[in-house]
Amino acid sequence: MAAPEFDHPTSADLVARYTAVRAHTERLAQPLSPEDQTVQSMPDVSPTKWHRAHVTWFFETFVLADAEPEHGPFQDTYWFLFNSYYESLGPRYARPDRGLITRPGAHEVGEYRRHVDTRMVELIDRLGRDDEGALVKLLPTLELGFHHEQQHQELLLMDIKHVLSRNPLRPVYVPAPAPGDAAPGGPGPIRWVEVDGGLVEVGHASGGPGFAFDNESPRHRAWLEPYRLADRLVTNGEWAAFMADGGYERHELWLSEGWARVRGEGWRAPLYWSEADGPGSPWLEHTLHGTAPVDPDAPVAHVSYYEADAYATWAGKRLPREAEWEHAVALAGPSGPSGPGAAPGPDGPVLFHPRAAADAGGQGGQGGLRQLHDACWQWTSSAYHPYPGFTPPPGAIGEYNGKFMSDQMVLRGGCALTPPGHARTTYRNFFPHHARWALTGVRLADGGVPA
Amino acid sequence: MAAPEFDHPTSADLVARYTAVRAHTERLAQPLSPEDQTVQSMPDVSPTKWHRAHVTWFFETFVLADAEPEHGPFQDTYWFLFNSYYESLGPRYARPDRGLITRPGAHEVGEYRRHVDTRMVELIDRLGRDDEGALVKLLPTLELGFHHEQQHQELLLMDIKHVLSRNPLRPVYVPAPAPGDAAPGGPGPIRWVEVDGGLVEVGHASGGPGFAFDNESPRHRAWLEPYRLADRLVTNGEWAAFMADGGYERHELWLSEGWARVRGEGWRAPLYWSEADGPGSPWLEHTLHGTAPVDPDAPVAHVSYYEADAYATWAGKRLPREAEWEHAVALAGPSGPSGPGAAPGPDGPVLFHPRAAADAGGQGGQGGLRQLHDACWQWTSSAYHPYPGFTPPPGAIGEYNGKFMSDQMVLRGGCALTPPGHARTTYRNFFPHHARWALTGVRLADGGVPA
Amino acid sequence: MAAPEFDHPTSADLVARYTAVRAHTERLAQPLSPEDQTVQSMPDVSPTKWHRAHVTWFFETFVLADAEPEHGPFQDTYWFLFNSYYESLGPRYARPDRGLITRPGAHEVGEYRRHVDTRMVELIDRLGRDDEGALVKLLPTLELGFHHEQQHQELLLMDIKHVLSRNPLRPVYVPAPAPGDAAPGGPGPIRWVEVDGGLVEVGHASGGPGFAFDNESPRHRAWLEPYRLADRLVTNGEWAAFMADGGYERHELWLSEGWARVRGEGWRAPLYWSEADGPGSPWLEHTLHGTAPVDPDAPVAHVSYYEADAYATWAGKRLPREAEWEHAVALAGPSGPSGPGAAPGPDGPVLFHPRAAADAGGQGGQGGLRQLHDACWQWTSSAYHPYPGFTPPPGAIGEYNGKFMSDQMVLRGGCALTPPGHARTTYRNFFPHHARWALTGVRLADGGVPA
Amino acid sequence: MAAPEFDHPTSADLVARYTAVRAHTERLAQPLSPEDQTVQSMPDVSPTKWHRAHVTWFFETFVLADAEPEHGPFQDTYWFLFNSYYESLGPRYARPDRGLITRPGAHEVGEYRRHVDTRMVELIDRLGRDDEGALVKLLPTLELGFHHEQQHQELLLMDIKHVLSRNPLRPVYVPAPAPGDAAPGGPGPIRWVEVDGGLVEVGHASGGPGFAFDNESPRHRAWLEPYRLADRLVTNGEWAAFMADGGYERHELWLSEGWARVRGEGWRAPLYWSEADGPGSPWLEHTLHGTAPVDPDAPVAHVSYYEADAYATWAGKRLPREAEWEHAVALAGPSGPSGPGAAPGPDGPVLFHPRAAADAGGQGGQGGLRQLHDACWQWTSSAYHPYPGFTPPPGAIGEYNGKFMSDQMVLRGGCALTPPGHARTTYRNFFPHHARWALTGVRLADGGVPA
Repeated sequence: MAAPEFDHPTSADLVARYTAVRAHTERLAQPLSPEDQTVQSMPDVSPTKWHRAHVTWFFETFVLADAEPEHGPFQDTYWFLFNSYYESLGPRYARPDRGLITRPGAHEVGEYRRHVDTRMVELIDRLGRDDEGALVKLLPTLELGFHHEQQHQELLLMDIKHVLSRNPLRPVYVPAPAPGDAAPGGPGPIRWVEVDGGLVEVGHASGGPGFAFDNESPRHRAWLEPYRLADRLVTNGEWAAFMADGGYERHELWLSEGWARVRGEGWRAPLYWSEADGPGSPWLEHTLHGTAPVDPDAPVAHVSYYEADAYATWAGKRLPREAEWEHAVALAGPSGPSGPGAAPGPDGPVLFHPRAAADAGGQGGQGGLRQLHDACWQWTSSAYHPYPGFTPPPGAIGEYNGKFMSDQMVLRGGCALTPPGHARTTYRNFFPHHARWALTGVRLADGGVPA
Repeated sequence: MAAPEFDHPTSADLVARYTAVRAHTERLAQPLSPEDQTVQSMPDVSPTKWHRAHVTWFFETFVLADAEPEHGPFQDTYWFLFNSYYESLGPRYARPDRGLITRPGAHEVGEYRRHVDTRMVELIDRLGRDDEGALVKLLPTLELGFHHEQQHQELLLMDIKHVLSRNPLRPVYVPAPAPGDAAPGGPGPIRWVEVDGGLVEVGHASGGPGFAFDNESPRHRAWLEPYRLADRLVTNGEWAAFMADGGYERHELWLSEGWARVRGEGWRAPLYWSEADGPGSPWLEHTLHGTAPVDPDAPVAHVSYYEADAYATWAGKRLPREAEWEHAVALAGPSGPSGPGAAPGPDGPVLFHPRAAADAGGQGGQGGLRQLHDACWQWTSSAYHPYPGFTPPPGAIGEYNGKFMSDQMVLRGGCALTPPGHARTTYRNFFPHHARWALTGVRLADGGVPA
Repeated sequence: MAAPEFDHPTSADLVARYTAVRAHTERLAQPLSPEDQTVQSMPDVSPTKWHRAHVTWFFETFVLADAEPEHGPFQDTYWFLFNSYYESLGPRYARPDRGLITRPGAHEVGEYRRHVDTRMVELIDRLGRDDEGALVKLLPTLELGFHHEQQHQELLLMDIKHVLSRNPLRPVYVPAPAPGDAAPGGPGPIRWVEVDGGLVEVGHASGGPGFAFDNESPRHRAWLEPYRLADRLVTNGEWAAFMADGGYERHELWLSEGWARVRGEGWRAPLYWSEADGPGSPWLEHTLHGTAPVDPDAPVAHVSYYEADAYATWAGKRLPREAEWEHAVALAGPSGPSGPGAAPGPDGPVLFHPRAAADAGGQGGQGGLRQLHDACWQWTSSAYHPYPGFTPPPGAIGEYNGKFMSDQMVLRGGCALTPPGHARTTYRNFFPHHARWALTGVRLADGGVPA
Repeated sequence: MAAPEFDHPTSADLVARYTAVRAHTERLAQPLSPEDQTVQSMPDVSPTKWHRAHVTWFFETFVLADAEPEHGPFQDTYWFLFNSYYESLGPRYARPDRGLITRPGAHEVGEYRRHVDTRMVELIDRLGRDDEGALVKLLPTLELGFHHEQQHQELLLMDIKHVLSRNPLRPVYVPAPAPGDAAPGGPGPIRWVEVDGGLVEVGHASGGPGFAFDNESPRHRAWLEPYRLADRLVTNGEWAAFMADGGYERHELWLSEGWARVRGEGWRAPLYWSEADGPGSPWLEHTLHGTAPVDPDAPVAHVSYYEADAYATWAGKRLPREAEWEHAVALAGPSGPSGPGAAPGPDGPVLFHPRAAADAGGQGGQGGLRQLHDACWQWTSSAYHPYPGFTPPPGAIGEYNGKFMSDQMVLRGGCALTPPGHARTTYRNFFPHHARWALTGVRLADGGVPA
């Protein structure tokens, strides 16, 4: 991650930022019962209370334990239970067993959070008064802690969506908001944004302004042939046409590993689609607002890389490379809150997002590109590997991203569950090829053929 | 199951009995948080709140739905969620997925219980006033419901013990009672009770007095050569000697399938034993009162059939056949509350049992046989098969026991977690050969060789 | 096993017997190519050349190595490769990996056999001349070796049948014999043989005349209520009626573990049945003579215990207990070559059996009981456990049977693949509940209810 | 694949080429018994006789069936058995079941080969005489068939190496050749070849001269920062230093998925290394010449991508990108038979290769780069994805490469088992990250950091 450049925030700024990030996590957990917060519905999913404790453990471990070494941990065992992948910090509790932890309960996790919050606020205050140098030195870790917690806010929602999907009672996480003044008509046909390419620069400059995760650096050059990007994501209606044309039955559309999944796991539609009254009846979709008919104008969501690739093959197009995505978005201007698409996806606009209102009706966007950060993460055709010259930071924090750089594909953008302010143009998200429980969708690309 | 013979209980008796059984379940769940009640730590284990709901569903399905057909179910989905193995009643929610059900939560299950309790008490009252014939007709199902709930009380405790065992915080279900005036000294050497055998009768006479499950009938004749039974169970101290003598490393002591488990699953000791400070340090035992040093005088618990058999081989003895166990116990006199052993096992005396006080110091027993019903279920060498002439009752209730009559072994007696009044001489419990999470122990037998 | 009592065979007798048993194995392997002899089609199956080597290893290990300790093994590695389950003799080559052994090949195994045969014949000759005491002492092991090899002759055929079944070329092991003068008409309806029961004796008397495996002793008393046995096995035609009546779709007919297999493995018919031209077309059966239409008059074969039990439930009958089977057969007179049924099963009469001719047309039998030893092994409702007073012989040979005494069911009789002279009334065969590749069938029982 | 440009080979040339390629396959199979040729030691491995039949099926299906449609297949079933991944051609025999096919045997596969060879030679002859246009049209498919068979020649050797490795007899495929006049001394320290990079061209020009597989096109531009490549592969001696430094025990060196393999599968050394006399004793290596001490000067072989990456991390270097590898090699001049390294690897020089003699002593190479094509395939850090503008050819042949473009990494170069003439600079081989049975090694890279 990168240290801020010159204007340091005050301790008051930092306390306000810390408090806001932490409060958002608790707001997300608020509609969930202790039982909801306990269950792990598959190995990739973590329980809500685990997320709440793990992000707290991060501040306790990487800030408090360092700044106040004489102070012991809140609970010895928590270091073991809520470490996620930092092997450097000793043995970890096996990931698939997170759902076996009944104690501490949701309530005790709340106490843990409050304890760490009190100490963190006191520490920032004290350093602001007594030792500004130490505070400045702490900034990168604090910043990383904020973004780490925001990542888990997004995961918390993806995970609880999966947990609730396993319940035949069709539970509702939060009620759907009242429909806004949606733009009349559907999203319209895809328009293609033309990009020249050439020798372009991508990535976050190490030490440059603004925060970025380590995997976004160094900034480096890449060669792109001229290409085109779709201005919006593929819709459910378009996906239904793919299905109707035998999309899930025609091997020639699929990568070999994808076809093995289709057959082995019986994929017939996106993850959360089900037929209300058995085969042939209308498709419903499980969302955080409960089960509802599939909206043909909304972006298709919860499809794997394999499905995204098969769809692109069927459509005679392809998925964008990550450099193509980033370059086109960077060209279009500074990435503020993304302009709204006609339909921001199954779970949005929902989730305590101030931007939700704007999203519902706007027509903004970047150079014609819509649905960049507010609908679904967008599969690219780029495997998740280090950028040229990447070196992870030393120490346990250095395990943050680098070790996951195999067997995964890069996704770009952001989604309806991404906390406000968390997305950016250079952000590299990543999931395994077969992952479907993340809020993922499809933006098509075309061209890029060498002359 | 068998209908009572002549003296029918009054509706007031039945209401009192119903209320007592139901209240006992809730008392057992009372120390458990909503999180504790939600988790399924392995496929054989069911969550506490599932047990609480399932036994309620039994009364709703087999009593209320029949008696008040115009009344709908409390919740349609509950019929699906809380059915266990009654295939006749339609598709069931897959057993290994019970831990994915976050809703209804523990609180809502409480509401469900109260709703059914109100209706049940009203029904019994009303029939007692208006339709005694119908009440008499209902008796067998009520009786089965009481015993069914008692079975699940015992399972609830075995299951939550396993759930809590997976938590590195070493949680306590209930604090250990103050030590009573334990008999001084250990249990002493095994004394052997000699039994003549011959052509004996075992099993519960169909239509005979008292309740029995269908699998205990018909009463029938069996031939037994003279044999001997140990007066008490094998102790932890004796088991430690077996371990010290290479018990878990000597293939020649083990059945082939047992040896495969020893190697494949790394068995080195009874299920809940662990070495406090790594290999070679003193053994601790996970109990419902928390983790404590292994008590050498207490009966060994949580051993599989394979381990029980290997121990017997090592000791130059064998496990009793179920007819041997039953005949010896029947000879010794009516089976009331079992007399206490010197040490009633790791989890007892605990659990709201009125008999606990007596257990701790008494010297009773049946004909010298001790620890029959109050320590650990006792593996026999008999596979669980139907008695000659067994026919399951018609309808869904007929699925109660018969369909499990393969791939399991019979256990006899009862254990420290068995609710008072639930055990009896003819009771046939059963678990798979490899099961260790049930509260199972070992009583040795000897002799029985034909002349 | 039991030592013969007084009249010892001469060394010439023994050489003749040895030579005949060994030659029979080679005759069975003769139609098989080196490739056929190499493959292991599932973990339960062993390659033909492994069988040929393993039975040879038995004589080398338990006879030659003992009698001629100064003589080394034919090949050091063979001791490791061809040991089967004798843990006492050191680490074994993992059973599921037997199909990975390309060398020694079928030809080298033949050389191994000839080497051991030469030494064995010389040893027997020499002892007959020089040391009759040693020869007498060797008799039990020789006898066990003969019967051990005969067991593997039967297994070799069951196993190669499975291997060939995986090949879409529908290979033929040996051509079907010309049809004999079969008795006109079908097998007719089942006739029931009534047996009084009472206090009966079963098992082989330790030290009694004739050979028996250790698991057949001691002879002991058992109590049987009056019962009835079917005079013949269930036919394919009867099985087709069970199927037509929803036999494989009605859960209420099945044991719980059996139903799990039906669903999990998609059982719809006996193992080797397939529909010639897809669902609904006539059923074919894979046999050692190739693929042929299912013969409705032949005994059904290759059904598991679960299927046998479900069929019996459907038919309103039950499976016999092993004591019932043995007592009825013993009552009927000395068990010579079994009289023929109308149709001796899919693979018989085939296999170099001198009795085949007689089988085809005879009308013999024991007290009306037919198809005892020449069609299919017959599932009983008895779990495979030691007889009262059973003690395995000391040493490695003591591992022969005892350690398999769990998780299996007893089968009685013999089958079309059993070598002549190998079957007897007290023989206890055993397979897991779900096994289908063995040549197993169904004889029904009825009655046995206590008054 | 690309069609040759102007000078077409004559039919005599083609017959000679066809005959040579086909004969080489048979030479490779010649030392193998029918049993050796039958076994599949894991799902990724195919039996030798399957390889021999599958490459034959290719010519029968894509050449003969097209050219002589009136002629039926040699055997209907072969189309089913020996199709590999061409889903377009109908259902395939499941890959993991290839080892169950005992018939056709190795001998019958030989007959199949001769039958197709006769027809192929006749066809080429006839077209050469009668219809040169048709012959020219056939050229691309013939060329693809030759290269397809060469690929399988390499796989055949990798596969049989794995099969033989499972045999405790330590079998020898072919004896090691007499040691040549090896260059005195070891390989010396790595020398680094500096490359400027910039905007370079890589890939095979569609329609350009020479053969290439479809996945090597189109030729396209890529941007490379200045970088350095090691002149030779990492040696066993260097690998031993990595092991001695805790290489397989230090999680911080490993990608997360790699570390999971290390722990889950117990990796402690390259695939075929074992300690002669238990832990701590000298390392031996299984080779096609039998088991031999590990040669510290030879390139390390049979390591996965995860191991290659962990080694590079440990060494403070990285793996090359595929464009870096190709560009550096192309710069160095036309890629003829690769110059020899000091030690060409565990299995070479072996295998009927005319280049073997030269390999053993030479000092050639391309611009200082050694061991490019004759030792081990070299892992790159590039995921296997389509080149920009890649489009698979239409029809079943279009399934050749494209569908495998996920979940795999690119390897470059060639290995000691690659048939002469098969390797080239643009060749893209690919295996899953965890694959170890392929003959894979490590060439390090460095630099490439943006200024």
